[in-house]
Amino acid sequence: MTPPPPGRRRSTVHDVAKAAGVSRGTVSRVLNGGYVSEHAREAIQTAIREVGYVPNNAARTLVRQRTQAVGFIVHEPHSLFLEDPNIGGILLGANTALSQADYQMVCLVIDTDRDTDRVARYLSGGFVDGAVIVSARQHDPITDVVERLGLPVAYVGHPPGISRPWVGIDNLGAARAITARVRSSGRRRIGMIAAALDRDSGSDRLAGFREALGDDFDETLVESVPLYAFADGEAGMRRLLERAPDIDAVFGASDAVAAGAVQALRAAGRRVPDDVGVVGFDDSAWARRTDPPLTTVDQPAEGLGAAAAEAVLVQLSGGVADAGGILLDAPIVWRASV
Amino acid sequence: MTPPPPGRRRSTVHDVAKAAGVSRGTVSRVLNGGYVSEHAREAIQTAIREVGYVPNNAARTLVRQRTQAVGFIVHEPHSLFLEDPNIGGILLGANTALSQADYQMVCLVIDTDRDTDRVARYLSGGFVDGAVIVSARQHDPITDVVERLGLPVAYVGHPPGISRPWVGIDNLGAARAITARVRSSGRRRIGMIAAALDRDSGSDRLAGFREALGDDFDETLVESVPLYAFADGEAGMRRLLERAPDIDAVFGASDAVAAGAVQALRAAGRRVPDDVGVVGFDDSAWARRTDPPLTTVDQPAEGLGAAAAEAVLVQLSGGVADAGGILLDAPIVWRASV
Repeated sequence: MTPPPPGRRRSTVHDVAKAAGVSRGTVSRVLNGGYVSEHAREAIQTAIREVGYVPNNAARTLVRQRTQAVGFIVHEPHSLFLEDPNIGGILLGANTALSQADYQMVCLVIDTDRDTDRVARYLSGGFVDGAVIVSARQHDPITDVVERLGLPVAYVGHPPGISRPWVGIDNLGAARAITARVRSSGRRRIGMIAAALDRDSGSDRLAGFREALGDDFDETLVESVPLYAFADGEAGMRRLLERAPDIDAVFGASDAVAAGAVQALRAAGRRVPDDVGVVGFDDSAWARRTDPPLTTVDQPAEGLGAAAAEAVLVQLSGGVADAGGILLDAPIVWRASV
Repeated sequence: MTPPPPGRRRSTVHDVAKAAGVSRGTVSRVLNGGYVSEHAREAIQTAIREVGYVPNNAARTLVRQRTQAVGFIVHEPHSLFLEDPNIGGILLGANTALSQADYQMVCLVIDTDRDTDRVARYLSGGFVDGAVIVSARQHDPITDVVERLGLPVAYVGHPPGISRPWVGIDNLGAARAITARVRSSGRRRIGMIAAALDRDSGSDRLAGFREALGDDFDETLVESVPLYAFADGEAGMRRLLERAPDIDAVFGASDAVAAGAVQALRAAGRRVPDDVGVVGFDDSAWARRTDPPLTTVDQPAEGLGAAAAEAVLVQLSGGVADAGGILLDAPIVWRASV
């Protein structure tokens, strides 16, 4: 058959019926696996090839109320896709789990308010059976629409005030543990470049840092930057060095932030780890790209995506997912930077 | 209204009709903007709120044969999402253009053969009106299904043998230009770490390098690596240094590859640019993270995504997109690495 020209009307069951010389009902029976005579079946199969008919799943969706698709919703794609290597791992982990269950993952990015409204309509519109949501905020329109529809969802990270299944790591505990290790190495003027304090991950990492230092916590050694980004880490480190030239260690809230700090330290003539020790968070590819490579916390990105997808699949198969959180292990990876 | 429990059956027009005490036909008329009495309209609007009814767009899709959604298809997400910073820019550029036209972009990732088959079914199934396709290959099942359906589509990059609209840059010309600039700086033993030779971008960059050197081209100074990745650049540079210790410049097929080369050169005690000049390709965030920052080719990632989306939108609005290619400018960005 000749491919139809772009944008041509799709062939319908009506076209098939006409070409085969049978009723539309007979075509439907064949498409749905029902009984028809061998003669009619052959005529219909020939007609399907002739007119280039492809069954319309949107129609099936209507009947079954299932799309066999699950949304993967990413907020703030500019910072996440371009700076945070975790997002790719989370996405691939979710895709693998959904694919194994024969679900199509459809990734929807929310970059502007216009996107928010449109994605909310898309979710309302019956195009997906459920969703994995990354980096949600409380009172987000997406969160609201998901609640209103009762859509099966799971969050990566724990947006405050939400009592639906979520998957994450113990950011506070991991930050406390890595700070304590830095302290036990004999460093005394330990700073932090805190990032993304409007997200639970960012504020929990700062809280862990503060807990580990206890009475020795000195807020003049904390520099706060907006994003988990290399450039933010570089700028934050420059400001810290100006304010506290005697700093001897720094905890970057992500590996990208810590890599930026390493760059700023080198530019200022400080040796890592001899003069200043540096640790990060994520164990992303960044951690192995700095010289020396970074001591960091291993954030299991693919595991988070897979676990969130599994929590949605449980709900889709009629089970009840735990409305609390699942915490995955995030061990310290010790390298040469401190 | 109380949110329905997760996974609960969606409310239907039938539920609305029952709660309002009217026929389903009357409800449909209200939903489709037809005439009904003011009394019935109010009763139906109250009932819609009561039962939590949300119009099912899958049903509308069936009637209009339009989903107002466009697919964004990414092959090889492992290497692309985790190593290639361009993919995020292309995705965001496409999302912005589609969003402005009120289309929902749905990103579909193809990681395994199982994904390929399922995405092909999804495209066949009427869930999207068109698609932007990144990193396609010839005789790819996705390309085949797109051809068979006559789906409005545009490619980023130019898969050989495909005569549908595509958007790209002149990889060959840009690689030739940057190699010529390196040569004009007085370097004589110029090597290349070529990557992804199974893609048109990879093979075109090598062809441009070869053209610029002409009779001086020396194939022992070319090292080929599988991916546009940092680790591949590092390994490739180590092998080049073993084979040609007198090398005085290297062209990395991407900034990530070039950044890996810088790392390997530093580990080998070579200074950049004093001993060995290094140039990359992409002008991604990588280019500003090396020390010194990389001279490179500015690949307009967001522009590519936006232009591909525009080419799909033209087809969706009934226009005919040029079946040839659109080439965007990719100028050289001169920095300190050579």
